[in-house]
Amino acid sequence: MSEHDLVTRLRNGERRALARAISLVEQGGPPARAILAAAYPYAQAHRVGITGPPGAGKSTLVTALALEWRKRGVPVGIVAVDPSSPFSGGAVLGDRIRMQALGGDPGVFIRSMANRGRMGGLARATADAVTLIAAAGFPLVLIETVGAGQDEVDIAQAADTTIVVEVPGMGDDVQSIKAGMLEIADVFVVNKADRPGVEQTVRQLRTMLQLGGTSQEGWSPPVLTAIATTGEGCDQIVDAVERHRQFLTTTDLQARRALAAAERELSAAVHELILERLRGPRWAAFISEIASRRRDPYAAAIALLNGAAE
Amino acid sequence: MSEHDLVTRLRNGERRALARAISLVEQGGPPARAILAAAYPYAQAHRVGITGPPGAGKSTLVTALALEWRKRGVPVGIVAVDPSSPFSGGAVLGDRIRMQALGGDPGVFIRSMANRGRMGGLARATADAVTLIAAAGFPLVLIETVGAGQDEVDIAQAADTTIVVEVPGMGDDVQSIKAGMLEIADVFVVNKADRPGVEQTVRQLRTMLQLGGTSQEGWSPPVLTAIATTGEGCDQIVDAVERHRQFLTTTDLQARRALAAAERELSAAVHELILERLRGPRWAAFISEIASRRRDPYAAAIALLNGAAE
Repeated sequence: MSEHDLVTRLRNGERRALARAISLVEQGGPPARAILAAAYPYAQAHRVGITGPPGAGKSTLVTALALEWRKRGVPVGIVAVDPSSPFSGGAVLGDRIRMQALGGDPGVFIRSMANRGRMGGLARATADAVTLIAAAGFPLVLIETVGAGQDEVDIAQAADTTIVVEVPGMGDDVQSIKAGMLEIADVFVVNKADRPGVEQTVRQLRTMLQLGGTSQEGWSPPVLTAIATTGEGCDQIVDAVERHRQFLTTTDLQARRALAAAERELSAAVHELILERLRGPRWAAFISEIASRRRDPYAAAIALLNGAAE
Repeated sequence: MSEHDLVTRLRNGERRALARAISLVEQGGPPARAILAAAYPYAQAHRVGITGPPGAGKSTLVTALALEWRKRGVPVGIVAVDPSSPFSGGAVLGDRIRMQALGGDPGVFIRSMANRGRMGGLARATADAVTLIAAAGFPLVLIETVGAGQDEVDIAQAADTTIVVEVPGMGDDVQSIKAGMLEIADVFVVNKADRPGVEQTVRQLRTMLQLGGTSQEGWSPPVLTAIATTGEGCDQIVDAVERHRQFLTTTDLQARRALAAAERELSAAVHELILERLRGPRWAAFISEIASRRRDPYAAAIALLNGAAE
């Protein structure tokens, strides 16, 4: 089957074609690029990032939010970005197991990402999977990321709406994450709202948002509460995301975010293609010279890009 | 002052020259490359990554470990990778304030990283800062990373010895982080060992390490306990790092890690330089075509790299 046929099939709703396309794209190379090129014109979807510290119950919340959108008749794609080993390539199954509540619903497509093992690789692979799921006709894609590193910020920046999940009464180091997450959050959710300290956490978040000023240009991120295990609060969260989606269309924010996302995608595509062209015997020789500190990386890169003998 | 003079001065122990060089390198461009090229041959140091979930007390542990190495007469460089906003560029001051215990000691150099705001940018900026600190004659550089995302894995991979910090009795989501961190950890530390549940956490980690097999080729990562606030357990952690450093020299592991690090540095340098060359009016035009889905990123990248009129 050609790459073009595969994209035609996934656009016609064939789940196996979608799953196969994502796997092929993860492997990279010319087939991956052909698939993405064929899918790209149709990849319109609202991307919702869900991020926050470990233990915040993100997977459970994603499941509960997906059920709420399904109640409203909206097909939902889910991409779970699992922590995984850079050496084994293995992915933790926990999230997928928790998401079995959604299993068997043809209006739901779930993909758990394995690690591509390169710098920026996970953000890249995630963006590609979302592109294909969007092209398959899912108007909404939820992207769950674990932890709070640079990669999470990259993935959150690629989302149209970002939900940051907190829980009541975590340690004071969480304050620093909140600071890093303040500007990327469009909606705050304090999950596990049946635990003590929820009012205090809500109050702290609201204070921090006020101190941070209105960096969101007209959008005040709401601070909502939820009990993801029972679904409590999920209708308000879905309402808030829909309000934010509306808000984006009334400003030039959406256009600017799309340009920034396009630049990241172009930058990543350039990187992938140039590495493919440069890898070879000279590349290998330069690597050993860099490792033994006989040549610095920039001098090697300039020599490779100029194609010169030195 | 020329870039070469700056590197001569930082090699002679001038702290202000070192701080200035790191700031210049963070700005990127030709001066950054000249500084790194001049420093690169001298950038030998043992790189120790300290990573783990938020709230594990990593900053306090880094401070306590640095004090222990100072007792042994070893100069210590510290790079704290703060969470920070991709928009404001601001960095949280908390870590630096906690590290004031080390202030005024000329055998200690501390740098807190601001966010460069690009995909892979933080890992890049961190590696460059470590190169300069190593070139300034620090035989040991501690690199503290917050959270547990892809970026942390990238930074940990660039370290010679990686310490993964846990605390007793965190939520079950932490299990998944441990799974992701299992293969990159050379030393496990259960911090806050005066809290309940420490024996259970140590036992769980040892069981997971046994189940994971000996992926470390002859090195069994020790699971140690510490109370970073009092310094308890830090002498054993420093001993374990020194043993691991010795171990690396007896295998080809160090050589293979150096080659992998060199390839990452070369790849990043190629990316930086090619983007500098490609950015311009055509780049901007392609970005709007990608944003409006009239062109896919790979087609745009191929056209830019081929320099064709398309």
